[in-house]
Amino acid sequence: MRVAVLYSGGKDSNYALYWALRQGFEVKYLVSMVSESEESYMYHVPNIHLTELQAKAIGIPLVKGFTSGEKEKEVDDMKAVLEGLKIDGVVAGALASEYQKKRVDRVARELGLKSFAPAWHRDPIEYMRELIEIFDIVVVGVSAYGLDESWLGRRIDEKALEELVELHKKYKIHVAGEGGEFETFVRDAPFFRARIVFDEVEKHWKEWDFSGVLEVRRAHLEPKQHP
Amino acid sequence: MRVAVLYSGGKDSNYALYWALRQGFEVKYLVSMVSESEESYMYHVPNIHLTELQAKAIGIPLVKGFTSGEKEKEVDDMKAVLEGLKIDGVVAGALASEYQKKRVDRVARELGLKSFAPAWHRDPIEYMRELIEIFDIVVVGVSAYGLDESWLGRRIDEKALEELVELHKKYKIHVAGEGGEFETFVRDAPFFRARIVFDEVEKHWKEWDFSGVLEVRRAHLEPKQHP
Repeated sequence: MRVAVLYSGGKDSNYALYWALRQGFEVKYLVSMVSESEESYMYHVPNIHLTELQAKAIGIPLVKGFTSGEKEKEVDDMKAVLEGLKIDGVVAGALASEYQKKRVDRVARELGLKSFAPAWHRDPIEYMRELIEIFDIVVVGVSAYGLDESWLGRRIDEKALEELVELHKKYKIHVAGEGGEFETFVRDAPFFRARIVFDEVEKHWKEWDFSGVLEVRRAHLEPKQHP
Repeated sequence: MRVAVLYSGGKDSNYALYWALRQGFEVKYLVSMVSESEESYMYHVPNIHLTELQAKAIGIPLVKGFTSGEKEKEVDDMKAVLEGLKIDGVVAGALASEYQKKRVDRVARELGLKSFAPAWHRDPIEYMRELIEIFDIVVVGVSAYGLDESWLGRRIDEKALEELVELHKKYKIHVAGEGGEFETFVRDAPFFRARIVFDEVEKHWKEWDFSGVLEVRRAHLEPKQHP
């Protein structure tokens, strides 16, 4: 099975890739859709390059597609990108978003591809427990009342997960950030040939908005010791 | 004819793209090979993202392939990237490098693809004259005795081209930089939907080496007025 994995660089798309590789699928391309409207035609250096750094660490070609960002246009744009790839299936990191899942399923159906969403409807806590054991996950974006600046740049380890579980009880924050409460970035995973090291980061925090991003100004790859 | 254009972001690959579009070819993907060894497993933010910014301005998906950088491995890595694309041909910006042209031709032949090199063996001065009329070309790297720091960030206009012709007579510098004398970046071309604006640049100059690079720390896209 030759597949493309929809890849944004966060924990869910890395899990999708991890799963696909464990299935023995031939992962031909990582596909990342970049929205124009999202950044309203502005494009600043920070972070946008990081997916590329991950692809380089993984060693699978990265396909960057561009979309105007209009909801329905996005589906067509993704379809156009996938259409030209010699693949049999597409794997997505969808966890609970019906909108995202339906969109991918529709494109796959129209292109005659199989559609996989290995994390779909998994229990968030159990899922996160599995992820933190295998990935080095760091929070690069926060947008929820209850999460403060200290979360930016924080690695999600067992202690952080416990706190997320508490925050879920208190503020209804989704433990896996499915409601957009936080964005993650994976710096290392079993299939990374090199790990990503952040050399220079800057926190941008909007107190009035309970939101912020971690700008990664410099990063590099560090070869891993193989046993 | 569905093609992929080998794309590095400089004047030659933009010319290849320009030519392909004028032929009426369907340019499905821009393909960019990133060498690992080149940066000896270090990967700093500056400039590497810029190809992506160009692809976004152009609106054609960008495929980034990764290669260990060993000479023969590079060919296989490029082949693996092209192999999964539904294309009939590949277009390269090769101007005079036999090594580069042979390599692309071989991969194309093995994959049953047509190979195009529209700039191949063109007269450098006449070629450059055509390019500066249609592209906004800026020098982002310099590596030759005879070219100084003032060339970094300089736009190649008619006056600059005249100087290059003089420098060719004096120091044997190739007018189109074919010997690696300088590296270029295209900020605008007729097929760009938005032009690239550099917001923050830094010159890194090694006096003892007659070489330097322009680090683009921030850039953005600016929509173009359409007539």
